[in-house]
Amino acid sequence: MSEIKELTNKIKKFQDERDWRQFHNHKDVALSLVLEAAELLEHFQWKSPQEVDQHAKECKDEIADELADVAIYLFEFADNLGIDLSSAIEQKIVKNGIEYPIEKSKGRHTKHNKL
Amino acid sequence: MSEIKELTNKIKKFQDERDWRQFHNHKDVALSLVLEAAELLEHFQWKSPQEVDQHAKECKDEIADELADVAIYLFEFADNLGIDLSSAIEQKIVKNGIEYPIEKSKGRHTKHNKL
Amino acid sequence: MSEIKELTNKIKKFQDERDWRQFHNHKDVALSLVLEAAELLEHFQWKSPQEVDQHAKECKDEIADELADVAIYLFEFADNLGIDLSSAIEQKIVKNGIEYPIEKSKGRHTKHNKL
Amino acid sequence: MSEIKELTNKIKKFQDERDWRQFHNHKDVALSLVLEAAELLEHFQWKSPQEVDQHAKECKDEIADELADVAIYLFEFADNLGIDLSSAIEQKIVKNGIEYPIEKSKGRHTKHNKL
Repeated sequence: MSEIKELTNKIKKFQDERDWRQFHNHKDVALSLVLEAAELLEHFQWKSPQEVDQHAKECKDEIADELADVAIYLFEFADNLGIDLSSAIEQKIVKNGIEYPIEKSKGRHTKHNKL
Repeated sequence: MSEIKELTNKIKKFQDERDWRQFHNHKDVALSLVLEAAELLEHFQWKSPQEVDQHAKECKDEIADELADVAIYLFEFADNLGIDLSSAIEQKIVKNGIEYPIEKSKGRHTKHNKL
Repeated sequence: MSEIKELTNKIKKFQDERDWRQFHNHKDVALSLVLEAAELLEHFQWKSPQEVDQHAKECKDEIADELADVAIYLFEFADNLGIDLSSAIEQKIVKNGIEYPIEKSKGRHTKHNKL
Repeated sequence: MSEIKELTNKIKKFQDERDWRQFHNHKDVALSLVLEAAELLEHFQWKSPQEVDQHAKECKDEIADELADVAIYLFEFADNLGIDLSSAIEQKIVKNGIEYPIEKSKGRHTKHNKL
């Protein structure tokens, strides 16, 4: 079994043991993904580039927990919709390559619609 | 090589071909993760439960793209910090099990600090 | 003096007494606005429509605090950029009226680019 | 009538003309507030401090529109809950003063629970 599928199974088992599927409609899971991503971002609020790097080193475990929270909702969401996340990522990288051709986007952070 | 590691390598290769590492400090990557999660959530704005389900079916490909965008920043972020995302998820599930014991949390969506 | 201007002055006075202007660049203030809006949204996570209404009544004071946090960053941000928020709102309502003509949008939550 | 009340009345009139009250439950309005704040934040994604300042000057009108979008949902939300936003802000400034005493927080961006 694939790594992501195996992790997803553990996530779903955890939820089913708690009978939480009734709450996990797509809207609330997407909303929860935003909230967890915001908790990650809060780690860097008001911090200078130097403070950001130092904080990332000092609080690596807390940050790993926040990343895991994001991953848990992400893997669940993909599974709820019957989306193969691994294929979705591979396909998106191809699409991004078309939107951001190397010669146009190299060394620039300009968005594709303004390239 | 693990599935997540392999996907992460493709993500990093894409960025390095475009010389984007200079922009991808932790703060901006975390911020981007929030923005992509918000784009996913926008799919469900103002929609009733029935509309949410129908939309998820009809727009599965667009939603898969949004999930991929979240995953791309998530995998990159973990790699930038030297975090093994797979272990982080497994450890977080264990922690969540302590915060949400089955007997207390079954069939309830109450947050752990109010259980 | 206008109500918003008067509130903005109190917000700026609070910050200047703490010498916080050095941290309040546009990026971090916008980021903070997102974080505060996310804290507001968290109040409604996993809740059914009935629970949402009941919670809003029971926790009105906490929610008022979250709204104030959003307002504080919003008013500060507008002031930092020399934007008259009151005029900006009036002008946006006019623009919204063009994007959402009554005859097309009445009783529908469809986004303007799909109307 | 107060400035905020007057603006709120225009916002509610706009919505009522379109019969949108049926969609504007607290959860969706809070969710929309997050989405609009994220659109504001997107203006500053990947930008260096110098680029942030320059962009804020060059795109002042677009940013004013984003701020107005945030304000529109904020004023509506407060009104839907019967919250006087002006008083809420004044009270929150007092609370913040207790959490962030000048002598402890001057020149520091440390969060109150770590001061």
